[in-house]
Amino acid sequence: MYAFSNAVNSMHSEDIKLLMKQASGKSMISFAGGMPNIDLFPVKQIDDIYNSLPENTKKLCFQYGPTSGYPPLINSLQNYLAKKGIPVNDSKILITTGSLQAISIITQEFINEGDIILTENPCFVGALSVFETFGAELHSIPIDKDGIDIKALKHKIASLEKTPKFLYVTPNYHNPAGIIYSPERKKELLEVLSGTGIILLEDDAYSDLYFNEDEKHLTKSMKSYGVKDVDIIYTGSFSKILGPGFRLGYMVSSQEIFEKAEIIKQALDACTSNFMQILGNEFLEQHKLESYLKFLRSEYLERKNLLQKYLETYLPKEISWNEPKGGFYIWLKLPARIKSTDIFKESIANGVVFVTGRTFDPAGIKDDRLRLCFSNMPKESIEKGVIILSEAIKKVLRNSKTTIEN
Amino acid sequence: MYAFSNAVNSMHSEDIKLLMKQASGKSMISFAGGMPNIDLFPVKQIDDIYNSLPENTKKLCFQYGPTSGYPPLINSLQNYLAKKGIPVNDSKILITTGSLQAISIITQEFINEGDIILTENPCFVGALSVFETFGAELHSIPIDKDGIDIKALKHKIASLEKTPKFLYVTPNYHNPAGIIYSPERKKELLEVLSGTGIILLEDDAYSDLYFNEDEKHLTKSMKSYGVKDVDIIYTGSFSKILGPGFRLGYMVSSQEIFEKAEIIKQALDACTSNFMQILGNEFLEQHKLESYLKFLRSEYLERKNLLQKYLETYLPKEISWNEPKGGFYIWLKLPARIKSTDIFKESIANGVVFVTGRTFDPAGIKDDRLRLCFSNMPKESIEKGVIILSEAIKKVLRNSKTTIEN
Repeated sequence: MYAFSNAVNSMHSEDIKLLMKQASGKSMISFAGGMPNIDLFPVKQIDDIYNSLPENTKKLCFQYGPTSGYPPLINSLQNYLAKKGIPVNDSKILITTGSLQAISIITQEFINEGDIILTENPCFVGALSVFETFGAELHSIPIDKDGIDIKALKHKIASLEKTPKFLYVTPNYHNPAGIIYSPERKKELLEVLSGTGIILLEDDAYSDLYFNEDEKHLTKSMKSYGVKDVDIIYTGSFSKILGPGFRLGYMVSSQEIFEKAEIIKQALDACTSNFMQILGNEFLEQHKLESYLKFLRSEYLERKNLLQKYLETYLPKEISWNEPKGGFYIWLKLPARIKSTDIFKESIANGVVFVTGRTFDPAGIKDDRLRLCFSNMPKESIEKGVIILSEAIKKVLRNSKTTIEN
Repeated sequence: MYAFSNAVNSMHSEDIKLLMKQASGKSMISFAGGMPNIDLFPVKQIDDIYNSLPENTKKLCFQYGPTSGYPPLINSLQNYLAKKGIPVNDSKILITTGSLQAISIITQEFINEGDIILTENPCFVGALSVFETFGAELHSIPIDKDGIDIKALKHKIASLEKTPKFLYVTPNYHNPAGIIYSPERKKELLEVLSGTGIILLEDDAYSDLYFNEDEKHLTKSMKSYGVKDVDIIYTGSFSKILGPGFRLGYMVSSQEIFEKAEIIKQALDACTSNFMQILGNEFLEQHKLESYLKFLRSEYLERKNLLQKYLETYLPKEISWNEPKGGFYIWLKLPARIKSTDIFKESIANGVVFVTGRTFDPAGIKDDRLRLCFSNMPKESIEKGVIILSEAIKKVLRNSKTTIEN
């Protein structure tokens, strides 16, 4: 039941109901939960860190900390972010209880009921649920293999009567689309926003999880481009480089945005856990991150390669996708005549679960895609999972043919 | 700088500015920060727990958990709360990132701009900052040594044109007033609310910190009174029984209130840290809480006794207070002609800091009180702190006389 609840956190509510009804108690192969692999966490490293903490630091773990964050962690993050080219000296860092809290704080800071937020389509479902909670009016812009559709973005901005408050994007190893924005697309995006007053909310949870060292430069954030006339708020997370259980994230913004955000955070949970911040800080400060990431990248690459191979082997030719260069996800494209929800019904009945396409559409309609998460898969289950999924797809394809012929 | 930021979290913004200006860099004796004593945390117990966690549980520390909370912790909390008489079978528990998050969630669930919240006067400043963030209209009711003023409460409710959404109270070892509600007052309060549709938000962070085993029954929560026609939301915290650094709290409510609260929590931070929940759960499950609380009570009692003794010895006779029976605070009453803010200026110049009375007045005006927190004081500093405070009070009293004579 527990792992089950875990897996459904990012699923469409209708799909959860179906899953509860049809699959409760069954053992499932899950491509669903967008989370790190439980067998790959840096347990040994954190053990070492915890057990060698000086007594005074350990006591500090138990105490309240400043709302803005544990000062040594802010310092370590400045070093970490400076290496990525983020202009930390001109910015302020606010530590948050996971990067979702950062998105929540920013939304609370800028959005009143009816204000417009621009998102990608598809869009990270956690952010969508935040935006909806605050009553934002959402307008989504399609993405292709290189990032957001610039023409559609320009058209959307021109067509709106009110200026959107911000544009929310996840340019690196997109969830769910798996793509990374090309440097050209990032540049074009900044040009479009330039001078419009639309804030860019750049959510970067996956940039450390590239598969190929040669492609690391592709993860360069827009925050680091040095553009002066676009206000960029950058959010990051420890969830993929340490573990979501730490609930550690952060936002990098101007002083002005930071000050209001800090007041909002104070009224949300006073401060983020000192315990988690101190362990996180030591992980960075003791330079344990780089070797751990090396290990993690090779493990996730292996899983991606297996999934890629089996998808090529078993899926019908009508199904297409972009092979990801990092991150956790493969985003399958279905023929227009079938829906991911229909495959879902068939698939869970046979023991495989994934997340349906409509989950990531702000309007909850577009359903010609499905998300497979490979990060959390046991390697030995991938082939079996793909076979079952493939059979489900074939059956739905056959049925759709029959329906058409009838 | 760090401990300093810590201490100012619950202070009035004007007082912080003054403190920064006058006392920055100075070594201060602080009666200010309302927090547990850093030398009393259960560091050894948590060490033992952490190092004996089974490998699979330890891995779970790093992963996402269900939004409602880590199921074994919910189970342990049910046992813990059942012993306090809380009707856990008819209620739902939501684990929150500190009990302030519970207050924040409840406010988000019930309050739209302009809705009325009733509070005590004085009131926990953290809650006030949450209520203000959501644009609530606050109406406060005075408290005396036995709890909220029933006549004033009735009069307030009758005088309002709109029904308040909820009444927020902290009946056990009130912050800042130090008092505990008498059982009669709790009963009367429930009678007043009965049938009005006003929800009772009962915040109970300190009930385990009574000084005398014989008075434990006084901490019985109103949630456990079995009243049917008042909707009671009960909030609790691990901050005083384990450490604020864990950011662990919870709310106990009806199924209906829980369901909406869970959705709000999902959009705030997805879930509370599994790491902290697992350590917290083991602390309860391995029955480490009771012996630790015994130790904690005797330590805080000793500090309270010292502070009580030195206040009796050194303070001018015009200053009065109720000796607390538990908790962290002594709440001094000043003669009407002097203000706590004036004493604050004098006191910080000589190295003693506390929290001014107006900080806890929702209107930010009433300033004839001051809060001394004894929990976080080194025992050997209490006498010196009281002497300096006493001199400051005497000086302000003298000045006020001169002013009147002139």
